[in-house]
Parts: sequence; C-alpha cells; structure tokens
Amino acid sequence: MDDRFKKQIQFIIEIDKIKSIFRKTCIFDGSRKENDAEHSWHFAMLAMILSEYANEPVDVCKVIRMALIHDIPEIDNGDVMVYKKSEADFENERRAAERIFGLLPDDQRDECLSLWAEFEERKTPEARFAAAIDRIEPVMQNYLNDGCAWKENGIKADRVMDTNKHIDAGSHAIWEYAKSMIDECKNKGLI
Amino acid sequence: MDDRFKKQIQFIIEIDKIKSIFRKTCIFDGSRKENDAEHSWHFAMLAMILSEYANEPVDVCKVIRMALIHDIPEIDNGDVMVYKKSEADFENERRAAERIFGLLPDDQRDECLSLWAEFEERKTPEARFAAAIDRIEPVMQNYLNDGCAWKENGIKADRVMDTNKHIDAGSHAIWEYAKSMIDECKNKGLI
Repeated sequence: MDDRFKKQIQFIIEIDKIKSIFRKTCIFDGSRKENDAEHSWHFAMLAMILSEYANEPVDVCKVIRMALIHDIPEIDNGDVMVYKKSEADFENERRAAERIFGLLPDDQRDECLSLWAEFEERKTPEARFAAAIDRIEPVMQNYLNDGCAWKENGIKADRVMDTNKHIDAGSHAIWEYAKSMIDECKNKGLI
Repeated sequence: MDDRFKKQIQFIIEIDKIKSIFRKTCIFDGSRKENDAEHSWHFAMLAMILSEYANEPVDVCKVIRMALIHDIPEIDNGDVMVYKKSEADFENERRAAERIFGLLPDDQRDECLSLWAEFEERKTPEARFAAAIDRIEPVMQNYLNDGCAWKENGIKADRVMDTNKHIDAGSHAIWEYAKSMIDECKNKGLI
C-alpha cells in the first residue's frame, strides 16, 4: 500500500466516527435521535431532488459534495445545535476540519477544506443553496415530530424563524415551505 | 404547495425509513450494526476519495448519485446479505424501486430508476466502479471487526473471495487491497 493510498484509507476509517455523532433532532418517525452520517445522506438526497428550486443556477454535484463533508469536523467536538452555536464553536470546527481533512493527501485535503469553508461562508450560489437544504431537514423533522427538538431545547417560534431565514437566500420556494411548517407548529401551540 | 413539490416531499419523507434498515455488518468500532443511510453516505465518501483508482475514467458525480440511491429499495424488503441474495430478492427490489421512486414526478422517477438499474447491471464504467466501492466498505468493516459478520453468518474465506471478486472489474487497486484484508482474516483463522 503506497503512502497516498494509506492516507486515504486512514481518512476513510476516521470519518466512520461521524456515525456516532448524534444530533438534537429525531428521525422522521420520532423513535430516536439522528446521527450526522444519516443527516448528511438525507441532505445530499434533498439537494439532488430539490435542486430546481435553487434561486440561482447551481452545480448540483458540488452541493452534494458539500452535503457529504459538511459535518465531518463535528467528529472532534460533537453536534452543537444551530440555535446555540458560538464563535468558539466555529473555531473548534475549523481546527477539527484541519485535523481530519489533514489526514488526506495534500491535494484532497485542500479540496475538502476549501469546500467546507465555502459551505460555511455562504457566499456562493452552491453554498447558499446547500445552507438552505441543510436547514430544511431539521425543520421537517420538528414539524413531523410535534416540534420535539425545539421544545426540548426551549427554542421559541420567533427564534426558529430568525435562525432559519437564510433559507430564503438559497431558495425562496423552500423558505415558503419552511415558514408554513413553522407557522403551523406555532399555531398549534407547539412552540 | 403544487403537485410536483408535494410528490418530491412525499419521496423525501418516505426515504427516511432507510435509517431503520440495518445491515449485517457493524460500524468500524464494532459497537453496533450499520444502517443503510450510514452505509450510503460512507459509500459516497469512498467514491469521492478513491475515484482515481477506477480502472476506466468515470463520472464521479454519477457514482456518488448511485451510492446515494442504491439501497433505497431495501426500505420494502430489508437488507439481504450479498452472500445470500436470490433471484427472488432481486425481483422484490425491482418492485420496491418502482414503488418508491414512483413517488417522484415522472422525470425524476425515470432518472432514479435508470440510475438504480445501471448500478445493478454493472455494465458501465460508473456501475463497475460503484459496485467495487459498495463492497470495499463491508470488507473493511469485517477486517476491522475480526470477520464479525462473516463469522456470524457462516461465510468462509473462499466464498468471500468469490463474491467480492467483481471488485477487480471496477478497480484493480481496490481489489488488491480487499484481497490483502481477506487473506489476513483467513491466515488469522477468523474465516
């Protein structure tokens, strides 16, 4: 096994740990919390199926690759709920990204770090759309589970609206859908 | 919500069930069985990182999309171990693919069915490489877990070699790596 292949295999083994990083939201049937690997898969599927609703033309393949890698840095620090994320959390994730993508050969390390940073910064059409998709899955999960994670963590409707409003920058249609679910949860007195 | 969007959302909700379809193999730390969503995510990541080892030039994005959707039909019938798969199992999966992808608007249904069938038939460079990647993850899992799923299911070394030898048609380098792991398990008396 040459050095390049060995590094790639080490990375592939390391990222298996994402299957043990659990999020605050439940899978759609409400039976248990979802982990980051499952979320990343669903995020990629949502991107594939809903790409026609992006506000701007996007390279869907790039959005899918963002979906696949975006939560890998959580291996080192766990999942922090979007409503509770601090500057220190972002800094911890950046360090984790450098460590974990740093296991790869240099060219692939740079490619993954650049893709991850692009996603985080939300300055390109792909990143804005990916950020919208990343948020619609937990909104759907809360909607289908009577606002479960929102109630458990004391998150009120105004906060949900405010934190997720950037969905609109990626997709007006998906933001309309998100708002309708949040409004329904509010009207039912769930949040 | 128009009819097209409604169909897409129904599909997205339906495929969440893949998170509850458990495989025979364990995650790398051996603590529990892996589910199909986690496997599909890892498969897509492996395809992204190891595409340079495909025997023929491949459209990596197509391989990733195959990875994401390839196990969706298992929602209806559960996971059948590759060593125990019968003609009836393939027929059941085909029917499940038609039902589940059939929830989508016609154009996306046709696209997903076609991609799924291409993967199953292994006649294109992308399908041959995807089939190799789909198999390397469980070989790695068994290698890292002392042949756990092979022992549990009474699968011997010759059978493992024979069932996985099609990896070579997708990637000679990945087949060499697979063989080295299978040989080591055999030499240790694990299978």
